[in-house]
Amino acid sequence: MKTTYMLATVATLVASSATAETFNLQSAFGGLPVLDPTAKRFVANVSALTGGEVEFKYLLAGEMSPPFEIFDNVSVGAIDAGWSFAAYASGKEPAAALFGSVPFGGDPLSYISWLQHGGGLELWREIYAPYNLVPMACGVILSEAGGWYTKEINTPEDLQGLNIRIGGLGGDILAKLGANAMSLPTGEISTSLETGRLDATELSFPLVDKLLGFDKVAKNYYFPGWHQPAGFIEFYMNKDKWDGLTDSQRTAIEVSCADANLYALGSAAGAQSEVLEGFRANGVNVARLPDSVMDALRAAADEVYAEKSAEDEMFKRVIDSYRAYAADYREYQDLTDLN
Amino acid sequence: MKTTYMLATVATLVASSATAETFNLQSAFGGLPVLDPTAKRFVANVSALTGGEVEFKYLLAGEMSPPFEIFDNVSVGAIDAGWSFAAYASGKEPAAALFGSVPFGGDPLSYISWLQHGGGLELWREIYAPYNLVPMACGVILSEAGGWYTKEINTPEDLQGLNIRIGGLGGDILAKLGANAMSLPTGEISTSLETGRLDATELSFPLVDKLLGFDKVAKNYYFPGWHQPAGFIEFYMNKDKWDGLTDSQRTAIEVSCADANLYALGSAAGAQSEVLEGFRANGVNVARLPDSVMDALRAAADEVYAEKSAEDEMFKRVIDSYRAYAADYREYQDLTDLN
Repeated sequence: MKTTYMLATVATLVASSATAETFNLQSAFGGLPVLDPTAKRFVANVSALTGGEVEFKYLLAGEMSPPFEIFDNVSVGAIDAGWSFAAYASGKEPAAALFGSVPFGGDPLSYISWLQHGGGLELWREIYAPYNLVPMACGVILSEAGGWYTKEINTPEDLQGLNIRIGGLGGDILAKLGANAMSLPTGEISTSLETGRLDATELSFPLVDKLLGFDKVAKNYYFPGWHQPAGFIEFYMNKDKWDGLTDSQRTAIEVSCADANLYALGSAAGAQSEVLEGFRANGVNVARLPDSVMDALRAAADEVYAEKSAEDEMFKRVIDSYRAYAADYREYQDLTDLN
Repeated sequence: MKTTYMLATVATLVASSATAETFNLQSAFGGLPVLDPTAKRFVANVSALTGGEVEFKYLLAGEMSPPFEIFDNVSVGAIDAGWSFAAYASGKEPAAALFGSVPFGGDPLSYISWLQHGGGLELWREIYAPYNLVPMACGVILSEAGGWYTKEINTPEDLQGLNIRIGGLGGDILAKLGANAMSLPTGEISTSLETGRLDATELSFPLVDKLLGFDKVAKNYYFPGWHQPAGFIEFYMNKDKWDGLTDSQRTAIEVSCADANLYALGSAAGAQSEVLEGFRANGVNVARLPDSVMDALRAAADEVYAEKSAEDEMFKRVIDSYRAYAADYREYQDLTDLN
């Protein structure tokens, strides 16, 4: 161990640490499993790593801004930072949907690897730049469930005419097969399933879904979560605020997000089995969607990707980038798979 | 944004940042792809996050200590920290092998999730505590190749009598099937394959293996890497040095290792395909081992695990902990797998 006296550095630290800044961090989510602990861990790490110079005041959904307005509020600087889901911005920028999840995309590791090593982050930053926002993944979510259905699904035709609560690209894909993709506040889903207004819904993975009590009103829980085989929780900051940070403060945020990515995946991964067991005990049919349904959904997804790519150049750049990376990734994954 | 003046904190920072400490970090590896950039990134992040208060002097294999002596040297404090492979310590502690890789274990994400959320890290720290070392994963490596063979392997019987360069549990498993597991310095492998002294070798994944030129002397490259479906690169520090750090300095190291874990996986994952293409162009048979061989190896692994568990209580605790976590993890992974 070598000890060096750093008098020059002391002076710098005094100068730069004379103030501590507290930034509002508005979450799009409530106090949910996995998400809430991940956000708290991120906030604590940034505080520890900056010696308290950068503090985030973490606000649960709706405390300062409604979830769908976080993007605009951080964009204009009314809020400093957001912790949200990029697909919520797809109304403004269709390609943003692909930074929430890629239907029929790869697993969580392939998704985050593409972001860091396959050019994904650069594209994301390009999309958010006109909005004065600097985004990054700050919590990777493992595959969701495919959804809760009040009736069994045995063929693609069984989807026709169903009212299904699902948004974004997943909804576009289901619509190709004749389902009605609907938007509905979370609090109304359970009752709607019970009254028959709704035939199906997706929400999250078992650990979260159980909080909503869907297992009491819909007895078919289908997998895989083809519409979200992996998801990013995004952190973004108003670019002026971001630029006002020092290099090491920005590193503290970025490295704490890397930690959050691994942490979120790990804390969800081993915890689903027990919940599934509870569902089964409650008479729920936990099943894989039949191959014929998966094939039809996959073909519909290809149609949707082709259409969106024709309409929006950035969408095409992002999906092409992701698919090229995923193909290389997949080859090695298949070769080394033990199962 | 709220600005608070923190005069008390300034005084603290002046007191604690009056010295910068440089710690020796002895790597067990040379300047290899994936590993070397990951180590450099880790060192740079710790420096940035601690404002230069904690600097690691990163030494390549052999610069200060031979690879297999790093453990002892850091243990006694002659070196401050090591960056190595836990299986190298299995001569002292058989269970350490399971923190290098778990033959027939889960994928990289399941492995790192077990460490963080399944009790793995606590067990590892318990094993290293008597040696005055504090370990953590600091670079997760994706599945290795199964190995290079000069002859085709079509049945388990084809393994009998082969001289194979492979160590640790992988070697114990192959020995059950009649192969001679041998130890050989890296520099002698290629020639030994050419002269027939060696019939097969494992080393790493394609990106690293190509540096050794094995594709010129062994024309069968088998997958999966059953002996190492995922691997941890470990960071450990002398416990007295670790205890001398502040909480936030320790957080800087831990969070930089989390970042290193994701980074190492991602930088390797997409980069193997091109190398495999080059091997194929050079006449290499890139193939999966036949099911009958995999089944025999898996049965042999179970035998080895049972024997080691009977001999060593900690080995049993670690493998039982890992298998319990992996089973829960695997159920959800299978349910949500898109392929």
